[in-house]
Amino acid sequence: MTVGVHVQTVYILNGPNLNLLGKRQPEIYGHETLADVETRCLQITDAAGLTLKFLQSNAEYQLIDWIHEAREEAVGIIINPAAYTHTSVALLDALKTCEMPIFEVHISNVHQRESFRHHSYVSLAATGVIAGCGTQGYELALHRLLRLVQG
Amino acid sequence: MTVGVHVQTVYILNGPNLNLLGKRQPEIYGHETLADVETRCLQITDAAGLTLKFLQSNAEYQLIDWIHEAREEAVGIIINPAAYTHTSVALLDALKTCEMPIFEVHISNVHQRESFRHHSYVSLAATGVIAGCGTQGYELALHRLLRLVQG
Amino acid sequence: MTVGVHVQTVYILNGPNLNLLGKRQPEIYGHETLADVETRCLQITDAAGLTLKFLQSNAEYQLIDWIHEAREEAVGIIINPAAYTHTSVALLDALKTCEMPIFEVHISNVHQRESFRHHSYVSLAATGVIAGCGTQGYELALHRLLRLVQG
Amino acid sequence: MTVGVHVQTVYILNGPNLNLLGKRQPEIYGHETLADVETRCLQITDAAGLTLKFLQSNAEYQLIDWIHEAREEAVGIIINPAAYTHTSVALLDALKTCEMPIFEVHISNVHQRESFRHHSYVSLAATGVIAGCGTQGYELALHRLLRLVQG
Amino acid sequence: MTVGVHVQTVYILNGPNLNLLGKRQPEIYGHETLADVETRCLQITDAAGLTLKFLQSNAEYQLIDWIHEAREEAVGIIINPAAYTHTSVALLDALKTCEMPIFEVHISNVHQRESFRHHSYVSLAATGVIAGCGTQGYELALHRLLRLVQG
Amino acid sequence: MTVGVHVQTVYILNGPNLNLLGKRQPEIYGHETLADVETRCLQITDAAGLTLKFLQSNAEYQLIDWIHEAREEAVGIIINPAAYTHTSVALLDALKTCEMPIFEVHISNVHQRESFRHHSYVSLAATGVIAGCGTQGYELALHRLLRLVQG
Amino acid sequence: MTVGVHVQTVYILNGPNLNLLGKRQPEIYGHETLADVETRCLQITDAAGLTLKFLQSNAEYQLIDWIHEAREEAVGIIINPAAYTHTSVALLDALKTCEMPIFEVHISNVHQRESFRHHSYVSLAATGVIAGCGTQGYELALHRLLRLVQG
Amino acid sequence: MTVGVHVQTVYILNGPNLNLLGKRQPEIYGHETLADVETRCLQITDAAGLTLKFLQSNAEYQLIDWIHEAREEAVGIIINPAAYTHTSVALLDALKTCEMPIFEVHISNVHQRESFRHHSYVSLAATGVIAGCGTQGYELALHRLLRLVQG
Amino acid sequence: MTVGVHVQTVYILNGPNLNLLGKRQPEIYGHETLADVETRCLQITDAAGLTLKFLQSNAEYQLIDWIHEAREEAVGIIINPAAYTHTSVALLDALKTCEMPIFEVHISNVHQRESFRHHSYVSLAATGVIAGCGTQGYELALHRLLRLVQG
Amino acid sequence: MTVGVHVQTVYILNGPNLNLLGKRQPEIYGHETLADVETRCLQITDAAGLTLKFLQSNAEYQLIDWIHEAREEAVGIIINPAAYTHTSVALLDALKTCEMPIFEVHISNVHQRESFRHHSYVSLAATGVIAGCGTQGYELALHRLLRLVQG
Amino acid sequence: MTVGVHVQTVYILNGPNLNLLGKRQPEIYGHETLADVETRCLQITDAAGLTLKFLQSNAEYQLIDWIHEAREEAVGIIINPAAYTHTSVALLDALKTCEMPIFEVHISNVHQRESFRHHSYVSLAATGVIAGCGTQGYELALHRLLRLVQG
Amino acid sequence: MTVGVHVQTVYILNGPNLNLLGKRQPEIYGHETLADVETRCLQITDAAGLTLKFLQSNAEYQLIDWIHEAREEAVGIIINPAAYTHTSVALLDALKTCEMPIFEVHISNVHQRESFRHHSYVSLAATGVIAGCGTQGYELALHRLLRLVQG
Repeated sequence: MTVGVHVQTVYILNGPNLNLLGKRQPEIYGHETLADVETRCLQITDAAGLTLKFLQSNAEYQLIDWIHEAREEAVGIIINPAAYTHTSVALLDALKTCEMPIFEVHISNVHQRESFRHHSYVSLAATGVIAGCGTQGYELALHRLLRLVQG
Repeated sequence: MTVGVHVQTVYILNGPNLNLLGKRQPEIYGHETLADVETRCLQITDAAGLTLKFLQSNAEYQLIDWIHEAREEAVGIIINPAAYTHTSVALLDALKTCEMPIFEVHISNVHQRESFRHHSYVSLAATGVIAGCGTQGYELALHRLLRLVQG
Repeated sequence: MTVGVHVQTVYILNGPNLNLLGKRQPEIYGHETLADVETRCLQITDAAGLTLKFLQSNAEYQLIDWIHEAREEAVGIIINPAAYTHTSVALLDALKTCEMPIFEVHISNVHQRESFRHHSYVSLAATGVIAGCGTQGYELALHRLLRLVQG
Repeated sequence: MTVGVHVQTVYILNGPNLNLLGKRQPEIYGHETLADVETRCLQITDAAGLTLKFLQSNAEYQLIDWIHEAREEAVGIIINPAAYTHTSVALLDALKTCEMPIFEVHISNVHQRESFRHHSYVSLAATGVIAGCGTQGYELALHRLLRLVQG
Repeated sequence: MTVGVHVQTVYILNGPNLNLLGKRQPEIYGHETLADVETRCLQITDAAGLTLKFLQSNAEYQLIDWIHEAREEAVGIIINPAAYTHTSVALLDALKTCEMPIFEVHISNVHQRESFRHHSYVSLAATGVIAGCGTQGYELALHRLLRLVQG
Repeated sequence: MTVGVHVQTVYILNGPNLNLLGKRQPEIYGHETLADVETRCLQITDAAGLTLKFLQSNAEYQLIDWIHEAREEAVGIIINPAAYTHTSVALLDALKTCEMPIFEVHISNVHQRESFRHHSYVSLAATGVIAGCGTQGYELALHRLLRLVQG
Repeated sequence: MTVGVHVQTVYILNGPNLNLLGKRQPEIYGHETLADVETRCLQITDAAGLTLKFLQSNAEYQLIDWIHEAREEAVGIIINPAAYTHTSVALLDALKTCEMPIFEVHISNVHQRESFRHHSYVSLAATGVIAGCGTQGYELALHRLLRLVQG
Repeated sequence: MTVGVHVQTVYILNGPNLNLLGKRQPEIYGHETLADVETRCLQITDAAGLTLKFLQSNAEYQLIDWIHEAREEAVGIIINPAAYTHTSVALLDALKTCEMPIFEVHISNVHQRESFRHHSYVSLAATGVIAGCGTQGYELALHRLLRLVQG
Repeated sequence: MTVGVHVQTVYILNGPNLNLLGKRQPEIYGHETLADVETRCLQITDAAGLTLKFLQSNAEYQLIDWIHEAREEAVGIIINPAAYTHTSVALLDALKTCEMPIFEVHISNVHQRESFRHHSYVSLAATGVIAGCGTQGYELALHRLLRLVQG
Repeated sequence: MTVGVHVQTVYILNGPNLNLLGKRQPEIYGHETLADVETRCLQITDAAGLTLKFLQSNAEYQLIDWIHEAREEAVGIIINPAAYTHTSVALLDALKTCEMPIFEVHISNVHQRESFRHHSYVSLAATGVIAGCGTQGYELALHRLLRLVQG
Repeated sequence: MTVGVHVQTVYILNGPNLNLLGKRQPEIYGHETLADVETRCLQITDAAGLTLKFLQSNAEYQLIDWIHEAREEAVGIIINPAAYTHTSVALLDALKTCEMPIFEVHISNVHQRESFRHHSYVSLAATGVIAGCGTQGYELALHRLLRLVQG
Repeated sequence: MTVGVHVQTVYILNGPNLNLLGKRQPEIYGHETLADVETRCLQITDAAGLTLKFLQSNAEYQLIDWIHEAREEAVGIIINPAAYTHTSVALLDALKTCEMPIFEVHISNVHQRESFRHHSYVSLAATGVIAGCGTQGYELALHRLLRLVQG
């Protein structure tokens, strides 16, 4: 967390395939897109006087680069690492360089899916984990982050 | 969920050793007791017009009995199963009989503790899981539960 | 087995969540309750001139206490340990103190359920195991027990 | 189950080495042979108006062929797969083609023997499993089968 | 491969339960029988000037015997080992004695079925493996075999 | 598969290091390059009146992006995921969003290589898998795809 | 350990089935009951000027409750957790809240019994472990506890 | 071992694919066939005044049948179970019914081959095991058998 | 235990690196050396009229040789096998030849150290195990040994 | 290694998060940056008359591309794969195409970190591995590389 | 094997605890000592015109030293590694330096003992393995060795 | 490290079978002996003003004794534990008592050998590990050690 920045920034990072949210099987997953989630999160950060960077990438390196940015600029990170949750030691290492609250969000309850989704490298660096709360999980994570950052 | 009950009830169940919350190593865990958590949760359920049953037991059977009660009377369950998370198939089976939202809460991030704490039987029945958000995790779970129950 | 008891007793013990039998998802599990099972078992034990103690508890310790009773009073034990099948070394140890026929009954075929239900501690003490025969499994176990006890 | 067959048939199939039953270590296993078991089972099927095919083979393919026959002709199968229980995916696949009740019988309690006997491929296709009830297990399985087939 | 044989032979071997193909659950698996598959394969081998031996057996030893025949007479083997895929080291050893192209065919995608179907002993001797291409998999394997044998 | 597209498209995707095909150890792997494979595949798709997109990338995200494109534009996907076969849950998730035939191709028989190459995440989303048929595997997969798409 | 208590207390806790000690197979285990053990331990604590609470329960929750009591009142705990040794994370968590010497006692050498008895959750919180010293193990543990508490 | 048989018999049983011995890769395995091995063994049994039954089959059931014969007629069994060594519980069970010396022979040192060849079910019933001594292993086993049988 | 020896001998054997006891990190492990432990043990054996052989070696073979001596001369063995606890089958085999009480002592609670220290080969031959009682563990083991030897 | 290149090139490749070297926790890791390491390595390659390409990327594909370049242009590769060490089969496959010395460098001793860092895919292609020698490990690897390349 | 040695030497090496052979539990193991075994082996080597070095040690290093000697002086090694069979990579490495026939002998059938005795490091270097043939196993191994060395 | 020693000493320890270096398969391993390695290392230590103790033993205890010496006399240890790398907890414990830099050297890349060579107990105590750099690895380790000791 840098000193002298007047407006605090929060990064919300989204991993691979999340760009398809709301565009696929709407009868199951609903019509809500990642842009809709961003809008709802912005309402919270605006109210709290924070800047929000809401980003998505299918590229592991891009997520790492953003985490490197965040460690310079942000007061906290919320990340839905999607498939990289289970396979990316590189994400774990990037997050471990950040001395700030980190929250891991999964839209579904990963513990009820295939066994290879039960292990998370990201959890080893995360302050907390929220799973199975739908896209509201992002909002819940933001509320927790605000309490830690703003008291 | 029973028909004709005018006031909806939420059960918040706490497992073994949680009665010691706030009474032990306050320099680390803080001075907040389970009663304090209950008070904060009550503010949320009162505002939402819900009844709250906030209970703790060290006995596995007592938690099962309360879940059986809840399946008759409640619109949702929030449970911090503590140590039974990892060992109790009986709790899992009890929760599986409940057709309502169930949220599993852990105060700490269990994924950073001993490996035998990484597996949760309760997660197999839970709608969602919130870990590592401190006692605020109960409040976050309540907010999610209210959205599901009250829209 | 005590000497000099004129009427022989059989214990049928039921583990956690079995009190809900017949009260839940009747379109799937049917309307038969544990009381109905007891009635059918009583017809068999009455015909054989035996006393039946048919008990259920969600508490592991209660099941242990009943097994301790049974080792003094009974000629045989039939037990549906439900979830404790897979987790209770204490039940195994209690049963191992009983020098009499012990039958383990499961209403469903546990081998077709989750992998953690494939292992049974109770089987290590049981004379025989009957699974997947519905509630008729209790009756089959009784018939076997009678043959062993009465020849 | 074929339509228009006036007398219903039950297949009881016995796997490898069961032809030695009663011929070996009679002081331990008793003098009862497989023919004796067949006689006792016939009394049950005769009383119920069913035809019984009681067969034994040491050959995996022969058991598969008989299961193929049974799927055309029988109303139910009782199988003691002996050693093939633990090794034969082919038996499992054969049984999975049969839309009728299937009961797996083991004379001893296999769960108290070597660990490689704890897993059963056959159980994945069986309706129910009866183990450790001696040769009476065949009779118990027949009683259950009759209840399912004849009500 | 023998020298001086004017017409080259291909063996297509089918393992246990494949004799039921097309006779069972036609709404799912279709009405195509193994005879239909043979007919379609014959069209390919006839066009290529090859002799086809298309065989099925439920017996492991019969498949081994045919492989021994094939190593004397054939230019290549296509085998759908069905359940023996996962359990038969004897088939593997038989195939390893054959110095010719060997293709393993599975009608369904075995990797999406039970975990014990994910391992294939036969793959350790096979030149190639085709799975999940329905019965067309036999034809695809034949085309590959022809390219290797005839260039 | 989009509606109203007059010419159907097939994607053939190639993963990391496949750009070196034919450029390395030609005495072993032959002189055939990925361009040669593309030429042979084009002959098939041209004859069938299909458009072919034949692509290679060393980047996991690029393959994901192309799969996202394909889910909008293609009637089927053939993918040789190379090393990502064994490590990329992200590719699996991308493929799972595609409601069309998917074929996984490996030039060599991966089951005879190191044990970490025996597991494929991609197989969990693939309709079929073809391995060990050399580069002809692409053609075989195309033939299967055409049969499914064009009947 | 509370301040101002003039007489120091030691808790000796016994887990499930230990109430049967001496009542079962006396030709093997001897005629010594838990009451006899208590008597011998009292001689040691009396001599040392300590109060002894010697307790047994088959209920996991009861043992937890007593540990909670002990953390307020005792200078040390000796526990024979019996079967709960291997299955109770809840006991482990309770013991971890106690800042005092804790000794785990097993009458037999558990390392020579079934493999599931080789792991102890309680050992993770215990200061020391004594196994295979018969009921004298309680006395040995008391001697060690006294040395730590009284120097 | 039957009483009253004047000439003692030894069974030497050979499992799947051993009929190819000496017919395949003679530059590696040599030109010695199973008939040659039989001839050398006959010299030993003739000299000892024993009858030799030297048999080979690719069928598991045939080997079982011969073991059943041997338990009636033979004073000892030598078996090279080949691939069935690693997969056949049925062979193990058959051998366990024989109260006589049993020797397991492997021509090569199986411990230096694939890991699935390191486990032997047959060894659980065998008196001794000889591996990696080439076909001389049969002769060594005979010498040991003679010492046990004839002193 | 030899007959006719007037003074009974106890062996206390210490494994590798224990010669450094008290010479290393005294602020942690204290200043007590192995010689100090020997002195305290001598007080016990002297009082009991026993001879004590208190030995240490870094060599596995030396420990084996001493165990062989002890089986001729001693009435009991106390051994702290240190690192050999976890790796030496040879020590286990040596101890198994001794028909006398054997106690295994560990100064620290090995169950709280690295997982490879949780398994003990020596425990398979030991009468009892004492861990985590500091160097007093030797004295406790002696007291138990005396009770067994002298009643 | 190409023929006719007058100045030999060495590639030193650095994986994800290594761009942060020296910028994070300097009190622990020191103030030395990757640029400093490059400077020290340049001194060695300059002295040896070699060209050095010293590169870092967070992107797996970029590292693969550079390895492909190196296989055309370089005489050797030194790679610190960081997190990709443990997860990237693609890197392994890329390195396997290079017929030149390859050295794997880790700044810390990975064997003392989390267990998932104990396995290295890269080691399967590396000539040698240097770990726990700090950034001097790059220099040591260069010295070894020079000896192999220049004798 | 050295050139120019007129009398060929065979080493027979015996591992830890084998010096006790015949001195312990003679009612079970018999009265035959290692010296008796040596005598019987000498008869064979004398007859064959070979020198025999028959050695035993409890020290792993001594066995290694003798193997180093044997690689200079011997034509073959027979080794009963006893407990070191299962734990000594150093013995394996020593044996791997010897280009001569090596036979591993176990007096009992190790495959019927504890599971940690089922794996042999020595088998990875041995030409052949003989187990469960009693002390005659040494003689059988000698006969095989002679055939290989002398034809 | 002792105070007041004017000349600093480095220990280089070599484990079992390394005495054969250069004497075996020189066409593969070269003609360089351990004495040659010592000579090259001496050049480095002489130049640095250090004393070198270069030692080899096949005995685990001897290596432990030398480590105990080194902890008194040396400023650093370089050890090639050879086979004991993978099996000796005793070496690990000895090294853990040394508060000085420790480097583990392997001549070959152990990660490309059998899987049981992938785990190193010694690495848990080593500062750094160098593998696959041939005998130059000793020199590289010395250079690192000198930098740490002399700056």
